[in-house]
Amino acid sequence: MNETLDVAPADASLPDRGTMRTESGEIRSEFIQTITAAIAAEDEAFLRAEVAELHEADLGDLIAALAPDDRVRLVELTGTDFDFSALNEVDDAVREEILEELEPATVAEGVRELESDDAVELLESLDEEDKEQILEHLPPSERDVLARSLDYPEGSAGRRMQSEFIAVPLAWTVGQAIDYMRETPDLPERFYEIYAVDDARHWQGAVSLDALLRARRPVPLADLIDEDRRRVTVTDDLAEVARLFGKYNLVAAPVVDAENRLAGVITIDDVVDVIEEEADEDFKALGGVSGDEELSDSVWTIAKGRFNWLLVNLATAFLASSVLGLFEGQLQQMVALAVLAPIVASQGGNAATQTMTVAVRALATRELGPNNAMRVVLREGLVGLVNGLAFALITGIAAVAWFKMPGLGIVIGLAIISNLVAGALGGILIPMVLERVRADPAVASGTFVTTVTDVVGFFSFLGIATLWFGLK
Amino acid sequence: MNETLDVAPADASLPDRGTMRTESGEIRSEFIQTITAAIAAEDEAFLRAEVAELHEADLGDLIAALAPDDRVRLVELTGTDFDFSALNEVDDAVREEILEELEPATVAEGVRELESDDAVELLESLDEEDKEQILEHLPPSERDVLARSLDYPEGSAGRRMQSEFIAVPLAWTVGQAIDYMRETPDLPERFYEIYAVDDARHWQGAVSLDALLRARRPVPLADLIDEDRRRVTVTDDLAEVARLFGKYNLVAAPVVDAENRLAGVITIDDVVDVIEEEADEDFKALGGVSGDEELSDSVWTIAKGRFNWLLVNLATAFLASSVLGLFEGQLQQMVALAVLAPIVASQGGNAATQTMTVAVRALATRELGPNNAMRVVLREGLVGLVNGLAFALITGIAAVAWFKMPGLGIVIGLAIISNLVAGALGGILIPMVLERVRADPAVASGTFVTTVTDVVGFFSFLGIATLWFGLK
Repeated sequence: MNETLDVAPADASLPDRGTMRTESGEIRSEFIQTITAAIAAEDEAFLRAEVAELHEADLGDLIAALAPDDRVRLVELTGTDFDFSALNEVDDAVREEILEELEPATVAEGVRELESDDAVELLESLDEEDKEQILEHLPPSERDVLARSLDYPEGSAGRRMQSEFIAVPLAWTVGQAIDYMRETPDLPERFYEIYAVDDARHWQGAVSLDALLRARRPVPLADLIDEDRRRVTVTDDLAEVARLFGKYNLVAAPVVDAENRLAGVITIDDVVDVIEEEADEDFKALGGVSGDEELSDSVWTIAKGRFNWLLVNLATAFLASSVLGLFEGQLQQMVALAVLAPIVASQGGNAATQTMTVAVRALATRELGPNNAMRVVLREGLVGLVNGLAFALITGIAAVAWFKMPGLGIVIGLAIISNLVAGALGGILIPMVLERVRADPAVASGTFVTTVTDVVGFFSFLGIATLWFGLK
Repeated sequence: MNETLDVAPADASLPDRGTMRTESGEIRSEFIQTITAAIAAEDEAFLRAEVAELHEADLGDLIAALAPDDRVRLVELTGTDFDFSALNEVDDAVREEILEELEPATVAEGVRELESDDAVELLESLDEEDKEQILEHLPPSERDVLARSLDYPEGSAGRRMQSEFIAVPLAWTVGQAIDYMRETPDLPERFYEIYAVDDARHWQGAVSLDALLRARRPVPLADLIDEDRRRVTVTDDLAEVARLFGKYNLVAAPVVDAENRLAGVITIDDVVDVIEEEADEDFKALGGVSGDEELSDSVWTIAKGRFNWLLVNLATAFLASSVLGLFEGQLQQMVALAVLAPIVASQGGNAATQTMTVAVRALATRELGPNNAMRVVLREGLVGLVNGLAFALITGIAAVAWFKMPGLGIVIGLAIISNLVAGALGGILIPMVLERVRADPAVASGTFVTTVTDVVGFFSFLGIATLWFGLK
């Protein structure tokens, strides 16, 4: 299509963000103050109108910005105008606090307005008792749908699928399908494709809406089915589902049960959430933080959560120091060794962390697998050797310049080479072994890898120094 | 919709992966061998048939698994059956190698078959000369579209948008729009919504396909327009666009130029790529690796790429060791200090990295901003204090048990508290300052933060020891 080049007045060139936000996308503090004042004044009409206007994501941001007591009051005051899916946009801790304060009947009423996947997401973090109380307030058919989804394991496709979808007989034509959609009042809120099923609801194929709209009315649906279309099983891991979506550029995928009956549909917005959660977890794991930690958690919760990782680190730090302890005599004889030893450990630790980072990421994206493992291990070993040689030279010269002892330069250089090669091999092999034994490489690799470089660094530096200088 | 509960035979319950892959999703080595043999035998017919069968993502994986020479031969042998979008699925280094080996006319022919966004992605990594040569082989209208997209800055919406979209007059009805789609032969390959424009192609609104299919033919499109729909400007940053998609659950967004004329459309599959690239970059940055590093890079390229980060680390390691150097006398008098000093630095470094990780992530997701900065800084300081007290106790007891000197326990305990509080504040404030001065917190924070904890750790431990034991 050709662009018409006549210039005409622009009405606006940036995405609309409403009056709630500043230009840079922050919530205006005046907006929060207005809402807070209206809550204090119990100005129901104003709040209902404001809340009804907001997109669920914006409403979620507003909720998060309010004081804890005001959050619950806002939900109570705005009643049916409050979109409960906004609660899926806030931190778990905030959501749970609000849901626990509200009457189960109020929550149930809000849940009824949601698509089933949003309802499940809202309920899944509650404890069993609260969940039951809310489910009891729902009509049996809706309760059953939610209870079934909640029965699937956490992180499975069944948990995140939406039970609302469009299923039609394979024998229908395009015209029949379009008429059905025009005449059915309670279609899903958003949909991107329709599914063909047989009498027993076995999945037969998917037809995307654009294919439907290109075709003329008498064309049978069977002609429009994409033979290559992937489907997902209720028990499939969501991380695998996300990879499938990313790889094949899907916007939706049918979810079938063990008998190949259509049970639901997973849509790209849920997959984007999964991708972001996975990225979040991997990122935090690399930094020694649990994926569950949230910005709204209390000091105590966070300190406890991070304690374990620090304790493991303390143990490995003592292990490394015990290597120094083996060489107490030498350290006393030549204090330069005590001053320089941390440099050897640190360079090794950083080089090993680089290798480990690449390895963990490549394992997560499935880029690293049996087909190329040998090549990558060899490559990392060589990279360690190349940078080991480079830093042996630099560090050696710097050490000689500092302490005026030529032998020290050779000793630290040899130690750097050993430690960078050891670090590179540890950095690649440890994540691969963890993956093989089905541990999460992102979580566990860091400690092991820097332990290797601390121990090898101290031992090689002080060991070589002992031999070279004929110490103790 | 209710599920029919009759049990019926399952034909398959797992996603189809074709014969190319093993059950765990790896490419079968027999498959690679078959293709390699066919390339050697120049069995064009067989290769064309195989290649035409594969999804672009699978074809990309096959290309990556072949020997370098075979990659080019495969493209040449399969000619028009080779889908060039597969080349967007492989590492940059592999793609550039193939594109440079092929005749410009062959590449141009492949590019003509692609949607404009795929074509731009394929061409953008080439150097100017190669790009020009290929563009010259294209018809002027197609060349202009690609050249315009390539003119937008890297990382902008204009670079990733697809110039194929459906734009219709706002005055049309649903029936007219559907008839138009049925009668127009060259519609975009995939689309999720259509756009209403005025005579000068100014954007008027978006209508999603599901809205179109729910409505009856005489309904005017103007009634179906989603007033809240966000649009994107050609110059908008793709990372911002990705946040918009994630926040508002979009599958497509219109891209307008500075005059609000519709220039293209960005679809969720491109956004998913952007999200994954951003996650990849942030993850690697945290581990001290450039986001550009790819698994297929050579030893030399990788070693060079990682060298700079290690050099910065070496400088900071010498800085930290120079603090140890200030206390040479004390270290010689009491060698236990030399043995224990790395523990203080290590605990501080790990606690600070935890804080920094959370801060960098929260800045990237915009969860941390001016509204909650004070609260988060205070909280991190308190977390540092709480864990500082806990580890002061544990480390103190362990140090006393090891060296049988009660004073050493008190000294190391006080040093640990200082360093964990300093680390927490450094871990949160350094990324925030970097963000403020528009540096990327993910890339630069690590070095600064561990420098703080190394220096504070060594200085506080040895300084307190000097005072406590009256060393000198």
